[in-house]
Amino acid sequence: MKAFIINTTHEYPVKISVPFPVLKENEVYLKLTASSLNHRDLWITKGLYPGIRIGAIMGSDGCGMIDDKAYIINPGLDWGELQSHQSSAFRVLGVPDDGTFGQFIAINKKYLFPKPEHLSHAEAASLPLAGVTAFRALIKKACVCPGDKVLITGIGGGVALFAMQFALAMGCYVVVSSSNDLKIAEAINLGANAGYLYTNPDWAKNLIADIGGVDIIIDGACGDGFEKLIKVCNPGGRIVFYGATAGKIENINPQSIFWRQISIMGTTMGSQEDFSEMVDFVNNHKISPMIYKTLDFEEIAKGFEIMESGSQFGKIVFSYTD
Amino acid sequence: MKAFIINTTHEYPVKISVPFPVLKENEVYLKLTASSLNHRDLWITKGLYPGIRIGAIMGSDGCGMIDDKAYIINPGLDWGELQSHQSSAFRVLGVPDDGTFGQFIAINKKYLFPKPEHLSHAEAASLPLAGVTAFRALIKKACVCPGDKVLITGIGGGVALFAMQFALAMGCYVVVSSSNDLKIAEAINLGANAGYLYTNPDWAKNLIADIGGVDIIIDGACGDGFEKLIKVCNPGGRIVFYGATAGKIENINPQSIFWRQISIMGTTMGSQEDFSEMVDFVNNHKISPMIYKTLDFEEIAKGFEIMESGSQFGKIVFSYTD
Repeated sequence: MKAFIINTTHEYPVKISVPFPVLKENEVYLKLTASSLNHRDLWITKGLYPGIRIGAIMGSDGCGMIDDKAYIINPGLDWGELQSHQSSAFRVLGVPDDGTFGQFIAINKKYLFPKPEHLSHAEAASLPLAGVTAFRALIKKACVCPGDKVLITGIGGGVALFAMQFALAMGCYVVVSSSNDLKIAEAINLGANAGYLYTNPDWAKNLIADIGGVDIIIDGACGDGFEKLIKVCNPGGRIVFYGATAGKIENINPQSIFWRQISIMGTTMGSQEDFSEMVDFVNNHKISPMIYKTLDFEEIAKGFEIMESGSQFGKIVFSYTD
Repeated sequence: MKAFIINTTHEYPVKISVPFPVLKENEVYLKLTASSLNHRDLWITKGLYPGIRIGAIMGSDGCGMIDDKAYIINPGLDWGELQSHQSSAFRVLGVPDDGTFGQFIAINKKYLFPKPEHLSHAEAASLPLAGVTAFRALIKKACVCPGDKVLITGIGGGVALFAMQFALAMGCYVVVSSSNDLKIAEAINLGANAGYLYTNPDWAKNLIADIGGVDIIIDGACGDGFEKLIKVCNPGGRIVFYGATAGKIENINPQSIFWRQISIMGTTMGSQEDFSEMVDFVNNHKISPMIYKTLDFEEIAKGFEIMESGSQFGKIVFSYTD
């Protein structure tokens, strides 16, 4: 069968013919119909991810068929029994385990969930990794409530957009930030109440002047800008981060955290239970993932180029027409 | 009556004669029998605390009598209705409100709780501020469970010692840190399972080699050493800090936080509910505060000197013999 593998850690995945996978215990064959791209995939092609196995089929997100039934895959493998954190056996699907950028995948059937009926295959393939990450961050860690003011940073990325959609579905007042005016306009068009250009040094001051502050922040950047997230966080508020594209956290004044009873929580991916609840939430609220571009399976390298440019607003999806 | 007031922000409180306080609505007179010192008092005498009112009677912690009944005071005034954080009206007793370093105090009766019977007046006066801070940090924020491994930094301080005693009462495995070998030995003598000199650059490595890591950390220092707290924190762990004697937090690697699902929470003082539950906990577990030195009411300046030297292990208490 055809598949895109990680060949070296300094190029995009390459398409080769690989043997048809052999089933292990409890595994079934899923004929993939769509997959989507995550930042994780890009980092793997740059060698910036632990546990890279050269030759592995890439791809964490997938939708596919068994006979006439459609499924999506929970890409969080062997999370373990605890809800608080993943076990040491945990892996994200797609390097080192063979992933979704192939025509078929052999996957333990416990990771298969029926495709939400209101979603196309392309939309469903956009959901798993970013959806479960956003769900755990917003619902399980930040414990969002209707009416909360929620700031989602870096709007346009997969996790950020799901966090925005989930928060809007919960009845929150949602503000977003970006370095790109157009992405802010697009988020407001989708229902966000306001947006701030974080490249404006006064953005935090402006947010406080406009709405006082926010109760919950979902961030994927960290870095120098983290200090301002604390400034705009209301007393009793929660800052949850799932990534660190802007690097280390510096120059934090602890007094502004403890006196205002703020909690800062790291999160990554989610448990099997988180995934199941996320799918229920998406079904109940009829949430449709934002797709930026649907490409053909053959055009996977082009997807990586778009992601590397940072221009996308929504998920980059690959449709397996064959 | 006699009282110690803050006269300038560059000297210890001075004893003067002040008018007997006038009762406001819902207030009663408590004849003070003992009080204790907190770091907050020292900071006020250095001008390092917001909202200082020159001329106010100092002192947050107190025990006293109404007729033949003994009470302690919850020093957290007007916390408000929410458990998550204090209202903007919140003040800690003793500057700007007149505090416990006087012969009498006029206090709203809702802040009075019966003195735990197993405690002397001096012991009971040690409990309020440090006790409620430790209780909220350990029980309400970190959600400690029996069997958890708990690290208490800076052992010897009031909050740290209560956190240690509460964690031991909960059936935790408790390790402590200090810059002072003798304080570590004393903590182990009181029931702590192990201790580490944080002045040893290898302390974190040694802790990990010894016990793997800890589930909960209660810290009052922050500063450069905070990075090592993250290193020794187990996946799913909680780091709760109530102070920042070592200053700003720098050089934090977010990946080590989000991948390991760690939460970092600021906390200060506690609600009326926290205080009430803390007193119940102390009664149920028959916990006796650690007193370092009991001085006479007249010797309040001497208490400040001891606290400034940092040599104390436990609370500095003033007994009002008259």
